[in-house]
Amino acid sequence: MNYDQICNEIKNKRSYLCIGLDSDLKKIPKYLLKYDDPIFEFNKIIIDNTKDLVVAYKPNLAFYEVNGSQGIETLKKTLDYIPKNIFKIADAKRGDIGNTSLMYAKTFFETFDFDAITLSPYMGRDSIDPFLKFKDKWAIILALTSNQSAKDIQSIKNTDGEKLYEYIIKNSIEWSSKKNMMYVVGANREDDLLNIRKIIPDNFLLIPGVGAQGGDLKKISEVGMNKNCGIMVNISRSIIYCDESSKFDQEVRVSAMKVKSQMEEILFSNGII
Amino acid sequence: MNYDQICNEIKNKRSYLCIGLDSDLKKIPKYLLKYDDPIFEFNKIIIDNTKDLVVAYKPNLAFYEVNGSQGIETLKKTLDYIPKNIFKIADAKRGDIGNTSLMYAKTFFETFDFDAITLSPYMGRDSIDPFLKFKDKWAIILALTSNQSAKDIQSIKNTDGEKLYEYIIKNSIEWSSKKNMMYVVGANREDDLLNIRKIIPDNFLLIPGVGAQGGDLKKISEVGMNKNCGIMVNISRSIIYCDESSKFDQEVRVSAMKVKSQMEEILFSNGII
Repeated sequence: MNYDQICNEIKNKRSYLCIGLDSDLKKIPKYLLKYDDPIFEFNKIIIDNTKDLVVAYKPNLAFYEVNGSQGIETLKKTLDYIPKNIFKIADAKRGDIGNTSLMYAKTFFETFDFDAITLSPYMGRDSIDPFLKFKDKWAIILALTSNQSAKDIQSIKNTDGEKLYEYIIKNSIEWSSKKNMMYVVGANREDDLLNIRKIIPDNFLLIPGVGAQGGDLKKISEVGMNKNCGIMVNISRSIIYCDESSKFDQEVRVSAMKVKSQMEEILFSNGII
Repeated sequence: MNYDQICNEIKNKRSYLCIGLDSDLKKIPKYLLKYDDPIFEFNKIIIDNTKDLVVAYKPNLAFYEVNGSQGIETLKKTLDYIPKNIFKIADAKRGDIGNTSLMYAKTFFETFDFDAITLSPYMGRDSIDPFLKFKDKWAIILALTSNQSAKDIQSIKNTDGEKLYEYIIKNSIEWSSKKNMMYVVGANREDDLLNIRKIIPDNFLLIPGVGAQGGDLKKISEVGMNKNCGIMVNISRSIIYCDESSKFDQEVRVSAMKVKSQMEEILFSNGII
């Protein structure tokens, strides 16, 4: 998917919701355990009941890899099941020397048909470059993450007084454009987000941390949004683990709908729709 | 494996060689393509012919993931084939928020039986902590990597004049001990290695970048070695892709033996054996 297609989907769906598929065998409704592939059944229910409410799904690789080759099959089936007009993000946080990063790019963009992958910038530009060579595929670079320890590293100031995440964002602007680079900024980083938007007013931001991690949707949207919306907000646990009963299918829709309605209101009041 | 067991293996084998299993279908000898699982056959030949010469193997996850669930099966078979006394490193460069890092730890330490995993420190302590809770399992933290762009990020100086990798190493000392934490330092980082050894004289270092990436074994060993050896040097491409003929099995042994002999000499001249 390209930049304009994402913007159009947001306007058409009146939503910038991304649902994180952190699908854990120990947490899914028990009645699903009777199926051959319970995680796939779980994902299928989520997709069936939310596909008109979201613009993206974000499978978290750890939750598939933990089940070995079977988990990778589940992931593949899940991706094939997601409708074509929905943006598919591999939450994988990769990053390695060039020839290895190229292999990861092939993995996520070709072996699987993800649209985007999250990447750690610790190894620098040549670890990200290979991901930027694939048409209509996206690199989503970790800038300022939502976990507690993040700031210990990401907010270290350099001798010019720049925080590490700022330095990384400023440098990475040269690597490509808003057409295939997004950044991860945690929903609990409002103050920094204001600063980030000054450096990159146009790039899309992937914002996790609303819901189980405590970020506030309205506040973060108001600070992060640009004239094309420019943000996708990810919610995982508070939607996908909202209910353990056989009414899970309805409950998951209700939970996603609540967020989507809020988003629609915010998009409207910001003049985007 | 624990610290003492690794030290004993190094002394017994008179080697601190780690072979990187970056096994690529496009690069392996053509005669192996007739097998059902050519990559596994390739790895098997390497293991059969070098297992008495190495203390560790390091499968590079990208090269398995690119083949989807089949690749993960290959990885699993490879790990099962590696003798118990050899240290198994997942070169995976993971690192995520706590609950996801825990899933990755379970993946690599339980689903697979790796002894260690390489980790990116960009998300800070709570992204590494879950890996440190598993008995006799190791976190290998990226400090200063061998790729060209690494220094752009890893050598940024903070307001105290410390480079980022120094800051990370100094901080991470508090997280655990030499008993389950190692660091990655590229073989082309001799000058910095001297500095790193002042901060962490006792921890094991995993040193990639000798061979195809141009690092010098003798020089890097002299700077990096401590009284227990304290380094594992990884070589991938210049050993595993040394030959494309049906004599690959013999050639791979010759290539590994050359390195092992140099290592034996260095261990001897440093009084470790």
